[in-house]
Amino acid sequence: MNFKITILGSSSASPATNRFQTAHAVNIHERLFLIDCGEGAQIQMMRNNINFARLNHIFITHLHGDHIFGLYGLLSTLSLYNRTHDLHIYGFGMLEHVLNDFLKYFGNEFKYEIIFHAVNVRRNQLIYEDKNITVETIPLKHRVPCCGYLFKEKVPKLNIRKEMIERYKLTLAAIAKIKAGEDLTCEDGSVISNRELAYSPYAPRSYAFCSDTGYSKKIAEIVKNVDLLYHEATFACESLVTAKQTGHSTTVQAAEIAKLSNAKKLIIGHFSSRYKNLTPLLDEARSVFPETYLAKENDVFEIELKRFKT
Amino acid sequence: MNFKITILGSSSASPATNRFQTAHAVNIHERLFLIDCGEGAQIQMMRNNINFARLNHIFITHLHGDHIFGLYGLLSTLSLYNRTHDLHIYGFGMLEHVLNDFLKYFGNEFKYEIIFHAVNVRRNQLIYEDKNITVETIPLKHRVPCCGYLFKEKVPKLNIRKEMIERYKLTLAAIAKIKAGEDLTCEDGSVISNRELAYSPYAPRSYAFCSDTGYSKKIAEIVKNVDLLYHEATFACESLVTAKQTGHSTTVQAAEIAKLSNAKKLIIGHFSSRYKNLTPLLDEARSVFPETYLAKENDVFEIELKRFKT
Repeated sequence: MNFKITILGSSSASPATNRFQTAHAVNIHERLFLIDCGEGAQIQMMRNNINFARLNHIFITHLHGDHIFGLYGLLSTLSLYNRTHDLHIYGFGMLEHVLNDFLKYFGNEFKYEIIFHAVNVRRNQLIYEDKNITVETIPLKHRVPCCGYLFKEKVPKLNIRKEMIERYKLTLAAIAKIKAGEDLTCEDGSVISNRELAYSPYAPRSYAFCSDTGYSKKIAEIVKNVDLLYHEATFACESLVTAKQTGHSTTVQAAEIAKLSNAKKLIIGHFSSRYKNLTPLLDEARSVFPETYLAKENDVFEIELKRFKT
Repeated sequence: MNFKITILGSSSASPATNRFQTAHAVNIHERLFLIDCGEGAQIQMMRNNINFARLNHIFITHLHGDHIFGLYGLLSTLSLYNRTHDLHIYGFGMLEHVLNDFLKYFGNEFKYEIIFHAVNVRRNQLIYEDKNITVETIPLKHRVPCCGYLFKEKVPKLNIRKEMIERYKLTLAAIAKIKAGEDLTCEDGSVISNRELAYSPYAPRSYAFCSDTGYSKKIAEIVKNVDLLYHEATFACESLVTAKQTGHSTTVQAAEIAKLSNAKKLIIGHFSSRYKNLTPLLDEARSVFPETYLAKENDVFEIELKRFKT
């Protein structure tokens, strides 16, 4: 039951020699999701042994080139690999036109369909759901329509203790109720607590991706108690004015959002190419939120599986 | 008086972990030209300290993604760098539509003009000229309209020996004639040979870029006696049939074109991602044309300046 994030790119718009532009690969229970797709994302996916065939959903935060110019190459490569199954892409409505123009010139030989899902970037809305997770939008505060994405694992059904099935002669209907968390009422009226019948459940995990954005407390409300928060930190805190003017955040602002939201861990990224050494940026963020880490190409952040405290 | 080629990418369409897609930077007399612009070209330009501001001409061979998907990021970065001077792009006519669609969504803030030059890919034609060089198209044999580019240095004007100006009291008109290669006729009717008056000239240098293409003897005619030939070699010679079917060449075919054209040196590239170790490809080509080299990311091929033999 994986829940891990691979950093494919950590750079902002201006290219840097040792950093690629924004893209994160998210593997949840062996289902693969891509968030943003900066130039070079497909090369980075290869370098990280990410299986292209498993990728079925791509979430795009906004229509700035450093977040989408890797799409063209990736979509073409999926075709070269003879993909035939649908690919779902989520993003602001205009992205559909960009994709259609791309397909007009380069999609003639594609044997797979691209299903585009326009998302409302102004509201926190559920946009994707499968048996394991939900994905919601997080409205962000940028120069163009922009939203982040919140991945939430569902609370899995409880695992019943096998010996209880025999002991209480449980019917299928009773088992279903216990798996859903109910206590068992026996024929004699006695009540067996659910805790005795089933193992304690795993705590559902969550990952929030917030790039690009200026400082916004509303983000903290939406991502409350998130396990892992990625929040852009394009600038050091001395460049607060530039950050505000360009719709970006400083290290300290990112850390403040992590603190406000009671996140367990923070990753900062989308670094301006002016910063060659990132350690001072990390130090700034850690002064506010100690559990901060740098987004670095090819680093993997795994959210550990843990049971609810009983 | 530079004439050097930097390999930015050597891969064919399927991405490889350690290779970028096709792009060559050509520096002639400190003027910079880019041939093809595969994904990641701008990152590779940064890594090779190539000055973006000096780039004024981009030559695109054909409209397959692995040769142009780096354009989007590069053009955007030039805008971020506040470029205001024109950028010239040469290629097959349809590229203009691709660029216009791109600019429609992403070019609103561009402060520079893109001047598109449609080239006839079916004929060997002069398409660019400045005081130092000419560039001609080389019709190639691919699945879509495609041409290579032949860069030829002009024969520079002769350098006059300074002491001769004094000795023969040369007028400006006389100097101009001598620089153009004429002998000097003195007032007494005696003739001083040009060789005595001027240094022997530099031999003009040339570079031919041929990707993607099947085997075509016509290429050899156009690039006759070229100093440096880049010819694609997507496949090893055992994959001759695949090469033919896909409009590509094998190592041996590339080497045969080099031999036929009397090239001085051959670079092979555009390697299929199936080849992890390229040494066998090099060996195959060298068995036909010993002066063969592999296109490897960040390698620089310099064509040395040399005087005509007198």
